[in-house]
Amino acid sequence: MRKAVCLISGGLDSAVAAFVAKSRGFEVHALSFDYGQRHRKKEISCAKRLAKTLDAVEHKIIKLDPTVFSGSALTDRRISVPDTGVSGIPPTYVPARNTILLSYALAYAEVIGADAIYIGVNSVDYSGYPDCRPEYIKAFQAMADLATKRAAEGKPVKIETPLIDLSKKEIVQLGARLGVPFKHTWSCYRGGKRACGRCDSCVLRLKGFDEAGTEDPVAYER
Amino acid sequence: MRKAVCLISGGLDSAVAAFVAKSRGFEVHALSFDYGQRHRKKEISCAKRLAKTLDAVEHKIIKLDPTVFSGSALTDRRISVPDTGVSGIPPTYVPARNTILLSYALAYAEVIGADAIYIGVNSVDYSGYPDCRPEYIKAFQAMADLATKRAAEGKPVKIETPLIDLSKKEIVQLGARLGVPFKHTWSCYRGGKRACGRCDSCVLRLKGFDEAGTEDPVAYER
Repeated sequence: MRKAVCLISGGLDSAVAAFVAKSRGFEVHALSFDYGQRHRKKEISCAKRLAKTLDAVEHKIIKLDPTVFSGSALTDRRISVPDTGVSGIPPTYVPARNTILLSYALAYAEVIGADAIYIGVNSVDYSGYPDCRPEYIKAFQAMADLATKRAAEGKPVKIETPLIDLSKKEIVQLGARLGVPFKHTWSCYRGGKRACGRCDSCVLRLKGFDEAGTEDPVAYER
Repeated sequence: MRKAVCLISGGLDSAVAAFVAKSRGFEVHALSFDYGQRHRKKEISCAKRLAKTLDAVEHKIIKLDPTVFSGSALTDRRISVPDTGVSGIPPTYVPARNTILLSYALAYAEVIGADAIYIGVNSVDYSGYPDCRPEYIKAFQAMADLATKRAAEGKPVKIETPLIDLSKKEIVQLGARLGVPFKHTWSCYRGGKRACGRCDSCVLRLKGFDEAGTEDPVAYER
């Protein structure tokens, strides 16, 4: 059985991406990160439930030094998470996050002999982070193809981004078709008991569920 | 004063690269990693001494989950470090190591507002690791230029590889000129009390000092 490293944050998109891997016949090796993000408790507990549902062979939760990621509203309590509508790259941007996550996934893929890495990046209904764009993923792939022993031996690891061109509506529809347990996904940046419904991530998620005509089982503040 | 993130392993090459950064007027922010490598005690203690000599403003030592790097002779005690002369990529190769190290450096550079990352990769007198070659560094730079907010705002972080085309002899000569305290550098992969003098890293180092006509102050087994 072919193996895939699935980056599972606990959010909606990475959950759907991992279910795509599963539906394509991959054995799932889940990878999650604790980098001091505000919503880490919720995220990681969701990631654990998702990994179980996916029959993941292994679920590694890697702790990253949070000081490397300071200066982001997601990791620094002194910076507040804005409501949606910020122009440009918002303060929830985390420095080089996807680069670090994908680098770990690349090492892990080489160690376990995985053919693919699944990541739920999306560049349609997204917060404008540079490391979610197709051109970034393409450049990461080109770098990865020169980085490893596996690649030098003609077996490069493929970075799979099944959601990159989908709208949030289409992501919800795909997730519903694949049986993603939406109640075990958490998108809110604020990490309160209930999702805030106002941050960029909540607003995009709510719009997706609304347009897909699917009920979002997550509890919101309002 | 412009800032540079200097990846300092404690080895000869990264020490010389960091002294190049210093000589070019950069304020040094040192970054070292503990990834379960056999020679980590020696390496990290050398890295600390070097950072002090460089008047580094900060020296971060980041612990990486060693299971991500299993299967290498440098991290797995069941695999022995071979004497020099292995053809192809040797078993001391560590999966995606430079990719992870550079990714952390990229995040850290963005957080502190550094213009450059200095890394001591070399593709002349080296062990044949794919992630030391110029084409790999070029691809990493291209990826980094698309990855960060800094780059999106027109201030990309430059990956500087001042040693990439130098022979080990030239690296020793450059280090001597810049006043690198060679006694506080450690190259041996085996991590014993004295350097083994037989592994690839020792053999390349000894050859470099010999050809440069400089005495290597490190103690060898023979």
